Amino acid sequence: MALIVQKYGGTSVGSPEKIAAVAERVKRFVDQGDQVVVVVSAMSGETNRLIALAQGITESPSPREMDVLLSTGEQVTIALLAMSLQKIGCDARSYTGSQVAIVTDSAHMKARISRIDEQKMRADLDAGKVVIVAGFQGVDEQGNITTLGRGGSDTTGVALAAALQADECQIYTDVDGVYTTDPRVVPSAKRLERITFEEMLEMASLGSKVLQIRSVEFAGKYNVPLRVLSSFQEGPGTLISLEEDSSMEQPIVAGIAFNRDEAKLTLLGVPDLPGVASRILGPISAANVEVDMIVQNVAQDQTTDFTFTVHRNEYKKTLNILQQVCDDLGAREVRGDDGIAKVSLVGVGMRSHAGVASKMFDALAAESINIQMISTSEIKISVVVSEKYLELAVRALHTAFGLDAKAE
Amino acid sequence: MALIVQKYGGTSVGSPEKIAAVAERVKRFVDQGDQVVVVVSAMSGETNRLIALAQGITESPSPREMDVLLSTGEQVTIALLAMSLQKIGCDARSYTGSQVAIVTDSAHMKARISRIDEQKMRADLDAGKVVIVAGFQGVDEQGNITTLGRGGSDTTGVALAAALQADECQIYTDVDGVYTTDPRVVPSAKRLERITFEEMLEMASLGSKVLQIRSVEFAGKYNVPLRVLSSFQEGPGTLISLEEDSSMEQPIVAGIAFNRDEAKLTLLGVPDLPGVASRILGPISAANVEVDMIVQNVAQDQTTDFTFTVHRNEYKKTLNILQQVCDDLGAREVRGDDGIAKVSLVGVGMRSHAGVASKMFDALAAESINIQMISTSEIKISVVVSEKYLELAVRALHTAFGLDAKAE
Repeated sequence: MALIVQKYGGTSVGSPEKIAAVAERVKRFVDQGDQVVVVVSAMSGETNRLIALAQGITESPSPREMDVLLSTGEQVTIALLAMSLQKIGCDARSYTGSQVAIVTDSAHMKARISRIDEQKMRADLDAGKVVIVAGFQGVDEQGNITTLGRGGSDTTGVALAAALQADECQIYTDVDGVYTTDPRVVPSAKRLERITFEEMLEMASLGSKVLQIRSVEFAGKYNVPLRVLSSFQEGPGTLISLEEDSSMEQPIVAGIAFNRDEAKLTLLGVPDLPGVASRILGPISAANVEVDMIVQNVAQDQTTDFTFTVHRNEYKKTLNILQQVCDDLGAREVRGDDGIAKVSLVGVGMRSHAGVASKMFDALAAESINIQMISTSEIKISVVVSEKYLELAVRALHTAFGLDAKAE
Repeated sequence: MALIVQKYGGTSVGSPEKIAAVAERVKRFVDQGDQVVVVVSAMSGETNRLIALAQGITESPSPREMDVLLSTGEQVTIALLAMSLQKIGCDARSYTGSQVAIVTDSAHMKARISRIDEQKMRADLDAGKVVIVAGFQGVDEQGNITTLGRGGSDTTGVALAAALQADECQIYTDVDGVYTTDPRVVPSAKRLERITFEEMLEMASLGSKVLQIRSVEFAGKYNVPLRVLSSFQEGPGTLISLEEDSSMEQPIVAGIAFNRDEAKLTLLGVPDLPGVASRILGPISAANVEVDMIVQNVAQDQTTDFTFTVHRNEYKKTLNILQQVCDDLGAREVRGDDGIAKVSLVGVGMRSHAGVASKMFDALAAESINIQMISTSEIKISVVVSEKYLELAVRALHTAFGLDAKAE
């Protein structure tokens, strides 16, 4: 008998029929003796419908009232799922975030959970009931309804699992697990049996949008085993946990993430003086532009070249700021390129294996792909290449590091 | 400066534009120095949409979960109205029934209010805020969401007005007040300036469905002046209060109610013995059929005739039961008629005026309308006539009792 928290997203509960399918799945766990807490999102389309209603009223609705509005989305789903479970003879009880209570700070629309009262849930579970909790929402100390921000239902699931010390938090989505890379780019990409929290964070932040980053951080912090599974097909999914894969043939590289949403900017001939980096990035940060990779080469002739990447949407804006910085610093020239892509190898195995970088560069060179920037961390190596080489680079690396699924 | 509770129904808040219009109206009261608490229903169509979702899951949803589901309807409206008021510079704050708190018993889908905590509302009002409360919903002592049953938002308005000792509870609807009778039947029907709670109860229960009966009872019990007004046009509406109209030309009859939803059943030749009435009505009540008018004439030849009316939908069912009763009691014959209508004069003035009944019968006789049943109370006289005479009867009585509006 295990205590399991299951989280179902909007597409998994998008219609009465899909909700009935979720109820059937929950019942299978109950029938095999598990205690189950279910966290649900709003039905797909519902949150957008509510936002459109608010937009019909005002362009800048108060965050407190947006939370009152948006929290109704999940409230509808919990009631429907409870009815659906009861219909098939499975005792169930729904709770809003406020009822549970999931207590948060008062930062409306981006609240953070401060504590969870698990007494009611525990009593219901012990009485043989399935507990259904509205995701994405909570209540502050003054009784105001709060929301955790978009996608926050994953965080609710992990937080409940942590509070209840659940054996596993299962996140049901429309994919059947975490893959070595995007199967749309590499058809031979394979589902990972397991991956560590650290690897998942690098995969997620680099563009594999299976799970909300915050929920993975949360799961790692409280060591809640997290499993990503498909709502629509059976299978073990991917387990995200603290331990590395302990099998003999542990791969060095867990997966390959990539991102084509970036643009590269370079300031050439910058005087090589202390504090110059902050004089470059200060105005960019002040304009609320987030900088991703930063590379600065060693100086030659008292000047250096400074390169960084930003989100592609911020490219034009950043270019204008950087031109001003160039004039102020007396640098030589600004160059930019929004036709780039970033490719990253991720794996905790890199820590103990030398030669990963050179093997990566060899594989890319073999395809005549020029590397424009390199950035490394403990468990990942990222390179920037011309966008046109992205698919080729990912496929070449996927093969080079032995990630391809065996032909059936 | 007055403290006013305003209640807006579903059609009054049916779209962002209509909600904006409500906000403008509320602001006018605030601008003239009033403190305003607004109670709103779900946007028109929303409750039916939610019920359809539940029906997509199960035919018999649990009442607790129906309340979780249905209460989202008003929660959407309170958020949108708060945004709308804030947009036009009017500070406002929304509350669900649970947040206020409107504490009820645990009878889901038909809960009764046990107490209201008015502290939060009072503090907001004193701080210059408009308070917006979700109608129709509450919370039980265990924190479960409850609803007051359909149309219960009127009751919420009156209950809040009573708790806050408001100067007036204004119910905004799609009609501009209470009329002497249905203007669709009598075009010269006129709006009443005022009417007593007692009269309104008789008018409402007899078919003038402007206000929920329970809210009128509630208002009468706590002496909350109730005003029915139109959301869509300006005007004083109709004030429902304890006092009778004190003007010199006080009418004897306040209005004429009618009802075509009834059917008449008669048991002829019933042995005139003690307890026979309960032997007739017992089986009918046991079948959950509500009986409205009951008439029994004096006995002749040791037998009597027993006549009563039921809702037309229950006619066939009741006829079958009555046939069985007829056999059991050894009565002579069962007769029925579902082509009848009930017409009632209502007015507290009847208490002190003799001759109302005979004037009524004269007016009907002048039109050759046969009276099939008569039933009287302190402030009303009801007659049953053939349904085909209904409009004629109402118009004749409207004129006879001086209720017609003067030609303009």
